[in-house]
Amino acid sequence: MTIFSPLIDEMICALQCLPGVGSKTAQRMALHLLERNRQSARALAKALTAAMDKVTTCLHCRNLCETELCSLCQDTSRDKSLLCIVETPADLVSIEQACSFNGYYFVLGGHLSPIEGIGPEELGITRLLERLSSSEVKEVILATNPTVEGEATAFFLIDQIKAMNIVVSRIAHGVPVGGELEYTSSDTLAYALEDRKSC
Amino acid sequence: MTIFSPLIDEMICALQCLPGVGSKTAQRMALHLLERNRQSARALAKALTAAMDKVTTCLHCRNLCETELCSLCQDTSRDKSLLCIVETPADLVSIEQACSFNGYYFVLGGHLSPIEGIGPEELGITRLLERLSSSEVKEVILATNPTVEGEATAFFLIDQIKAMNIVVSRIAHGVPVGGELEYTSSDTLAYALEDRKSC
Repeated sequence: MTIFSPLIDEMICALQCLPGVGSKTAQRMALHLLERNRQSARALAKALTAAMDKVTTCLHCRNLCETELCSLCQDTSRDKSLLCIVETPADLVSIEQACSFNGYYFVLGGHLSPIEGIGPEELGITRLLERLSSSEVKEVILATNPTVEGEATAFFLIDQIKAMNIVVSRIAHGVPVGGELEYTSSDTLAYALEDRKSC
Repeated sequence: MTIFSPLIDEMICALQCLPGVGSKTAQRMALHLLERNRQSARALAKALTAAMDKVTTCLHCRNLCETELCSLCQDTSRDKSLLCIVETPADLVSIEQACSFNGYYFVLGGHLSPIEGIGPEELGITRLLERLSSSEVKEVILATNPTVEGEATAFFLIDQIKAMNIVVSRIAHGVPVGGELEYTSSDTLAYALEDRKSC
């Protein structure tokens, strides 16, 4: 016999699909909602269902949205000569929040991983190359993650995009702002030294 | 113009009803569900709705359950002479998980708080006293929180229960197991010293 009734147990189990939520946190969340916030829990259920049913990917950049084209692709005021390639919608959001880029995006939806069966087709690279060949893009900025897989994906793209006579650049690696040298990895410091700027 | 489409924005807002979830965590959760776990998100929505619709309080002990009586009240193998009074269903769960109590429970659903308009009626104290007068309970264990409000609620109950010729006890206060004296509050240490046990 468990302590919770079946429906509460089910809710505690279901809450654990959220990243970073284990059984203890899920239990706390479930009891909080039941005791104090039933209306919000109902609204959450509705919002989840609506989003899962209707949110799909933008036909143009593969960002998440519920319309054919996402709001970024619909925005004609942005710089058509710049295209930034990211791995995930979360990466796109991070770059947008930095307010330093005013071009368009392309979301791969992951990185190349032959072991997991993720090849160029799964990442929409064919569509990306088609788009590049028929667009005004003059520079592609590769903003894949600085991980082994992210670097491999970037290298895979560099040659193919260069062959189209488009400038390709990679976001800079170095010591993060607000970070401390003492806690920065050797790889990062090596990049920071090699790519030093004259003052 | 926000970065997210309206439905994703709504989901991010709705997720913040969960305790401990701010905008950044909610954003991470929403993107995780949309990109990698749509089926679980749908199951979560269903579980939330079912629980909010059907979970109510046990007629006997006021614990959360979807049946008339909760599984603990239905369990006839427990000790009918012991009744433990707790503030919330979460407190009941904590005590059950300690596996040291085999009696029945009564859940107040909060503590006395005249400012917030929470009096004996709201905490079901009338029903509790009725239940005590017509039951085999020989000892009531007060397990309200060791806070000012929890103590006040306990004191309010002590006299009324004693008047019914029922033994009343209060759970012990002291240094928590695994805790360190250095980080234990003065109030707690004062209790620990006063209630010391001869070895």
